[in-house]
Amino acid sequence: MENTPFNTSTSPYYDIVIIGAGPVGLMLSTCLARWGYKIKHIDNRAEPTPTGRADGIQPRSLDLLRNMGLKSAIMAHQPAKVYEVAFWDPPESGKGIVRTGTWASCPAFIDARYPFTTLLHQGLIERVFIADLEKNGVKIQRPWTIKGFKSDEKANPEYPVEVNLEHTDGTMRETVRAKYLFSGEGARSFVREQLGIRITHKDPISYVWGVMDGVVITDFPDIRMKCTIHSEHGSIMVIPRENNMVRLYIQIASSTDPDWSPRKTATEEEVQASAKKILHPYNIEWERVEWYSVYPIGQGISDKYTLDHRVFLGGDACHTHSPKAGQGMNTAFLDALNLAWKIHAVEAGFADRSLLTTYEPERKDVAETLLAFDNKYAKLFSQRPPAANEVQAASKHTNGGNGEDNEFVKTFKEACEFTSGYGVAYKPNVLNWSPEHAAKSPLIHPRGTKLRTGRLMANSNVTRVVDANVVHLEQEVPLNGSFRIYVFAGSPSSATASRALRDFAQNLHRSRSSSFFARYLRPDADGVSPHERHNPHSRFFTFCVVFAAPRAQIEIARDVPGLLARYRDHVYADDVWDRRVPDAKAAAHAKMGFLTGEGEDGEGGVVVVRPDGYVGVVVRLVEGAGTVDALNEYFGAFCTEKFEETKSQL
Amino acid sequence: MENTPFNTSTSPYYDIVIIGAGPVGLMLSTCLARWGYKIKHIDNRAEPTPTGRADGIQPRSLDLLRNMGLKSAIMAHQPAKVYEVAFWDPPESGKGIVRTGTWASCPAFIDARYPFTTLLHQGLIERVFIADLEKNGVKIQRPWTIKGFKSDEKANPEYPVEVNLEHTDGTMRETVRAKYLFSGEGARSFVREQLGIRITHKDPISYVWGVMDGVVITDFPDIRMKCTIHSEHGSIMVIPRENNMVRLYIQIASSTDPDWSPRKTATEEEVQASAKKILHPYNIEWERVEWYSVYPIGQGISDKYTLDHRVFLGGDACHTHSPKAGQGMNTAFLDALNLAWKIHAVEAGFADRSLLTTYEPERKDVAETLLAFDNKYAKLFSQRPPAANEVQAASKHTNGGNGEDNEFVKTFKEACEFTSGYGVAYKPNVLNWSPEHAAKSPLIHPRGTKLRTGRLMANSNVTRVVDANVVHLEQEVPLNGSFRIYVFAGSPSSATASRALRDFAQNLHRSRSSSFFARYLRPDADGVSPHERHNPHSRFFTFCVVFAAPRAQIEIARDVPGLLARYRDHVYADDVWDRRVPDAKAAAHAKMGFLTGEGEDGEGGVVVVRPDGYVGVVVRLVEGAGTVDALNEYFGAFCTEKFEETKSQL
Repeated sequence: MENTPFNTSTSPYYDIVIIGAGPVGLMLSTCLARWGYKIKHIDNRAEPTPTGRADGIQPRSLDLLRNMGLKSAIMAHQPAKVYEVAFWDPPESGKGIVRTGTWASCPAFIDARYPFTTLLHQGLIERVFIADLEKNGVKIQRPWTIKGFKSDEKANPEYPVEVNLEHTDGTMRETVRAKYLFSGEGARSFVREQLGIRITHKDPISYVWGVMDGVVITDFPDIRMKCTIHSEHGSIMVIPRENNMVRLYIQIASSTDPDWSPRKTATEEEVQASAKKILHPYNIEWERVEWYSVYPIGQGISDKYTLDHRVFLGGDACHTHSPKAGQGMNTAFLDALNLAWKIHAVEAGFADRSLLTTYEPERKDVAETLLAFDNKYAKLFSQRPPAANEVQAASKHTNGGNGEDNEFVKTFKEACEFTSGYGVAYKPNVLNWSPEHAAKSPLIHPRGTKLRTGRLMANSNVTRVVDANVVHLEQEVPLNGSFRIYVFAGSPSSATASRALRDFAQNLHRSRSSSFFARYLRPDADGVSPHERHNPHSRFFTFCVVFAAPRAQIEIARDVPGLLARYRDHVYADDVWDRRVPDAKAAAHAKMGFLTGEGEDGEGGVVVVRPDGYVGVVVRLVEGAGTVDALNEYFGAFCTEKFEETKSQL
Repeated sequence: MENTPFNTSTSPYYDIVIIGAGPVGLMLSTCLARWGYKIKHIDNRAEPTPTGRADGIQPRSLDLLRNMGLKSAIMAHQPAKVYEVAFWDPPESGKGIVRTGTWASCPAFIDARYPFTTLLHQGLIERVFIADLEKNGVKIQRPWTIKGFKSDEKANPEYPVEVNLEHTDGTMRETVRAKYLFSGEGARSFVREQLGIRITHKDPISYVWGVMDGVVITDFPDIRMKCTIHSEHGSIMVIPRENNMVRLYIQIASSTDPDWSPRKTATEEEVQASAKKILHPYNIEWERVEWYSVYPIGQGISDKYTLDHRVFLGGDACHTHSPKAGQGMNTAFLDALNLAWKIHAVEAGFADRSLLTTYEPERKDVAETLLAFDNKYAKLFSQRPPAANEVQAASKHTNGGNGEDNEFVKTFKEACEFTSGYGVAYKPNVLNWSPEHAAKSPLIHPRGTKLRTGRLMANSNVTRVVDANVVHLEQEVPLNGSFRIYVFAGSPSSATASRALRDFAQNLHRSRSSSFFARYLRPDADGVSPHERHNPHSRFFTFCVVFAAPRAQIEIARDVPGLLARYRDHVYADDVWDRRVPDAKAAAHAKMGFLTGEGEDGEGGVVVVRPDGYVGVVVRLVEGAGTVDALNEYFGAFCTEKFEETKSQL
């Protein structure tokens, strides 16, 4: 065997081999490393991205980074924050450019914690992940590349994937076996090519873009804003960055041009001269250029994200689009997150392997929506700039729902919601309940529910009972791979509500065979530290109980049944005023759509949130076994175990 | 000279020698190092505080740390946050303890950004400062101690202080000369003793305290809260900390005891047994004790903080008090900050040397207020626990001002304001304007002003015009030693307001001899980077202009006169809604008390904020030279230069 290029006889075993240490690879690696998986992670660059590249973190991605405990390390670099976008166009008469409008990049109708886009050099973001990985014992192997792989589940059901790796200088080689292989290689993915997966181009138009990062001296008033500038001399997009830097995107060529060539280029000086003309009557001088690059790009989506659910693609390997939408890194993060928790659920023995089939449709659909929006949005602007009253209408707190929004405002709202990251909507499937789901309990999705399955749970402020801290409820469970089960329990002084909560807790552990919860207890449940806050019973579930009452009226020992009282750090008072529901006594309940019944108290409910933050199912909280039965039906649709219906036993 | 113990012939020169690297020394050192001073900083401990010690950061101190850019490094340690204090007492009948009330540690009537106390091990806080110092080239010299010093301004007017230092093992010695010597040595200050300064004991009662840090297992429901527990078996104070830790303070002896001895002690086991009895019927077991100590303490204040305004004391060297108030570190920070900017103002050639005489009265008065409150507060509680309606009345958003508050509520409010740090009130002097001040312009302190000189400027949210970021106005100028001059300019569409702003800018630089601003320009003003945001003209002033208008209606090039337009990063729109002034069109103006006149627009004003955040003077913004004249009068009272009144010149 000495003459085989890769020696496979002593291949080490990994849970996953990840190719590429850009945003998608790093997010996947970081999640799985935290959850205890053994990872081989390589990248063909000698070090992290030194300059340039995608660097916009959308509002929802910042929530995600915070949930991972990585936000403050990113904000420590003092990134630029884009709150508004300004539009500049030629004036009605005369020369030059005038501001024709501005609007919020994340308008108030989106209930965002951080209503801005964060702009920071990608290399700095990558380093935050790399530092976290190193804490968990994963070191990116650089500069290494993938030379081949094969996947054969029959030959080796446990570690079906064999991967051949090589140092980029060809001096070293190794072969490893893994349960999974992931390509986060970017647009030119070797893995995708080897699998013969094609790219479908959604928009037939291709472009050549010039992008320049640097420090400028200018009297252009909006240089710290995101700007779209159209002039008779061409178009530019301005993106502010950290350290007084600015990024300019200039479209150099389009396949609609008569002399189109994807190899068309422009020098740094040409782009600067062009920028001067476009910005006239304002002056612009470069103090320093940090980075300049020209690249052709088209909109495309990979036909498949996986063939066998062992070798997966994600990030730019699956979708390419114009940099203008600022979505690259954000989409990459969510690809990785979606796959990470599903691999975990399967490998930890919780979910059926078929759960992995939900990765491609969920993420491919989002990529298609992104590209469609990118086109629609661009067309919208090329037609006409928005009028001031349209911007105002589109930015209002609440969607009036009175059908008055015109097409422009509607598209704008959808676009804002989508680009902020809050608009990602996974379609109905085994995880995202709909009437077609196998779970048929009439308690599911009760009247009044404002939450939508497949979308994020609404943000809300509550008071943690044990320490009176005012907290962001949606951030209380860290990104730990667990489902988050929020029990909105109404008032502890309501006898009905109290009985319903007690029955819920009792039915969770009524018998080992009959509940989603009881079947997936930790093997070490008896020895868990009393300081464990999130997963004392099961690695797959964290419970939170939210009462519609002031904190001072809640006594955990009296009001929370035993099993749930173990999650004492996750008991909350829904007693914080919220401007979005100013008249609600219990704002979080109101935002979710609970306590809205005819009766004085209304009813509580249980919200199951997937490990990645998306709502799976909403169930009424009722006396008896019904609530747990409904959850059993829901989880039974994708768990390894099935749960008996036990109404008759009570 | 070989046989002199300290060789003075080649003494190196420093701006300041700082003894002690606890909170007071580190804050002083950090400020002065950032502002370019040459520092010798020693500490007699081999490394930073390893365990125990003061660790409460009050709300206002967190503002300060944020203003220094150090808050996120502290919060990265995930400190405990105390939002509420719970009171436990023996029940009316029966045994054990019951909760008799809770209240906010920083109630809503205080307009705090961070309405909680942050609890973190002092050593971790010290390390944040030490890391910052190292960035500025200052390394704490350890373990070194001070052996002697003398101060003789006549012999050496520039470097009057000679200091003898020695390694604690006696193997190395050095003598240095400095402009200043600062003792941050703690209660047993060698410098204070050498100066013969005595401690006056405000409260004749002394105590012996036991303090224990550790991890406990308990069913006591408020273990994550700050609690004051009285029982028939004694009293305990509970303070939550980071990493599941808790601190217990137990009073072991009081000088009012018949068998009083300041040497009375108790073992770890005795304190634990005592805690068990006091907490009954709840259980408490120690999983781990991190630190245990017993120490006698009395309330005392140093008679003097300096004798010659060259050798200064601060922090525990000046005031000792019970740890219960949680004020030690906070008072230390403010001692240092107060001194730091005054030394800077004098040494940089801006303020007359006599400015240094304001350090002792300002800070000693605060220490006396602290001790008085400590007593009053303690007595208040020993008399009776507060009734629920009293707590409610005391916690309301606004002080009704209708005279209905009873004595208890009044004291409570004062105490909360004081302990939060927002109540620090420097008395009238050359910096804090009052009718007795040398500045007599009738434009000073106009009717309607809500700001109080010698107190913090109100917190407010505004929108920065250049990048549309919503920001905290009071945080916009970093702690850089500059006075912060906030111009509340009313509406840019008001002709009167626009003329007043134009006149203000013109009069600032009308001639080199006649304005506080023109006299203190940077020598390198012509070569300052266009990216300098805070001090383009003068190291002593930063200007901010706040318009009462929506951001979209403000054009800096049109609305801000040239000189002020240079501070383009400090132009704001007062267009963010504030719950505390819900009906105000311009919330920041309203909170400061501007635009409250009879006319439709009302009038703007100029607020001068000292480098440490306290309001110095408030002046009406009027057409003509009056506003600048009034500021000239104010600054003329303590600057090295005097300014001619120039009304006649215009």
